[in-house]
Amino acid sequence: MGPAATVDLFSRIVAATPAQRDQDHLHIIVDNLPAIPDRTAAIIGEGPSPLPLMLESARRLESVGAQVLGIPCNAAHYWYEELQAGVGVPIIHMIRETGRQLRASYSGAARAGLLATTGTVLSGIYVKELAPFGYKIIVPGSAGQEAVMEAIYGSAGIKAGKMGRRARRLLLAAADELAGAGAQVLILGCTEIPLGLRPEDLPLPAVNPNQVLAEALVREGLK
Amino acid sequence: MGPAATVDLFSRIVAATPAQRDQDHLHIIVDNLPAIPDRTAAIIGEGPSPLPLMLESARRLESVGAQVLGIPCNAAHYWYEELQAGVGVPIIHMIRETGRQLRASYSGAARAGLLATTGTVLSGIYVKELAPFGYKIIVPGSAGQEAVMEAIYGSAGIKAGKMGRRARRLLLAAADELAGAGAQVLILGCTEIPLGLRPEDLPLPAVNPNQVLAEALVREGLK
Repeated sequence: MGPAATVDLFSRIVAATPAQRDQDHLHIIVDNLPAIPDRTAAIIGEGPSPLPLMLESARRLESVGAQVLGIPCNAAHYWYEELQAGVGVPIIHMIRETGRQLRASYSGAARAGLLATTGTVLSGIYVKELAPFGYKIIVPGSAGQEAVMEAIYGSAGIKAGKMGRRARRLLLAAADELAGAGAQVLILGCTEIPLGLRPEDLPLPAVNPNQVLAEALVREGLK
Repeated sequence: MGPAATVDLFSRIVAATPAQRDQDHLHIIVDNLPAIPDRTAAIIGEGPSPLPLMLESARRLESVGAQVLGIPCNAAHYWYEELQAGVGVPIIHMIRETGRQLRASYSGAARAGLLATTGTVLSGIYVKELAPFGYKIIVPGSAGQEAVMEAIYGSAGIKAGKMGRRARRLLLAAADELAGAGAQVLILGCTEIPLGLRPEDLPLPAVNPNQVLAEALVREGLK
């Protein structure tokens, strides 16, 4: 939903498609509607609901023939049921897919550390969706969580177009905190976060839900 | 039109937009329709016309409210007049915009070297559109032109998802040839080409029409 995260998803879909020439690729329609109100602000009760514009966007995609939808925003999945009820085509549930992928890739792990916006953390969506896969969710303490928000929303943050050293340092410190608290694997649970750091810098293996979503969209799109 | 070039344009639009938060960005709708037949094959008479599907795509974008259109494919501009006649909203002419930008940025130069597909070269569109700006177009000899095509279309080429050393070497050799033939500035006249090389490796200053198009779309979109 952030434009950079939307570019990132589009890019990952193209890269995940087995293709030797243009004509082997999928028909992809992107509706980048940045006027959608901030999801985390709405979840914590400090802003208007993004649901009406998200529904408008989903219906626009459906109206021009989209057969499967994906939403490159973790927090937006707080409204997943309402969105799915409002369109006639399936919407891939990025967080459920991430649970499936975690279970397949890290079968020994039981504790996942969550780096995400405060909205996503407080919505409880990762706790709820990953429990069936046997995962407990560990989140940063309040200072660490504020640092994650600053890396995403601050004036030197990712949404302001900066993916620099300061955002990276804040995210890595929060990742270290989660590792210290017993996490065995990390979830980069805001689609802006992977834009600000490199997986090889992290103290633990990490899953990127935007990559999981891209692979799921390609899998469904090629059916 | 190549999916990678479409991702590249989308990314350049987002980067060129002055924004501190998601909500400052433009509403961007992308119709990535890779089934559009190859443009260069059609121009050289070896494939079906892409015009029907390009028109379908442009009309789809118009039908969901797009107010200005851009096409991230140089060769596609061979059909610009038919496309513009088929929709009610303006389509930015990437090649004309590139002429304007060249004139503004390299006012002393009179000879521009063109790295492009054979379709774009043979269509004469750069010669025609840049003449009013006082530019003569220089193109590689037939061996150099074949090397450019291999860098774009070959099995180790950019459209096959490879942006590796071989594609880069072929493009740089063609650029050297153009510099040797008197070009004072280069036009990276296929949207795949900038994905395969770094401007700092080139022997001359270069203009990237996909970047020119992104800036023009942001300018018009913010109006």
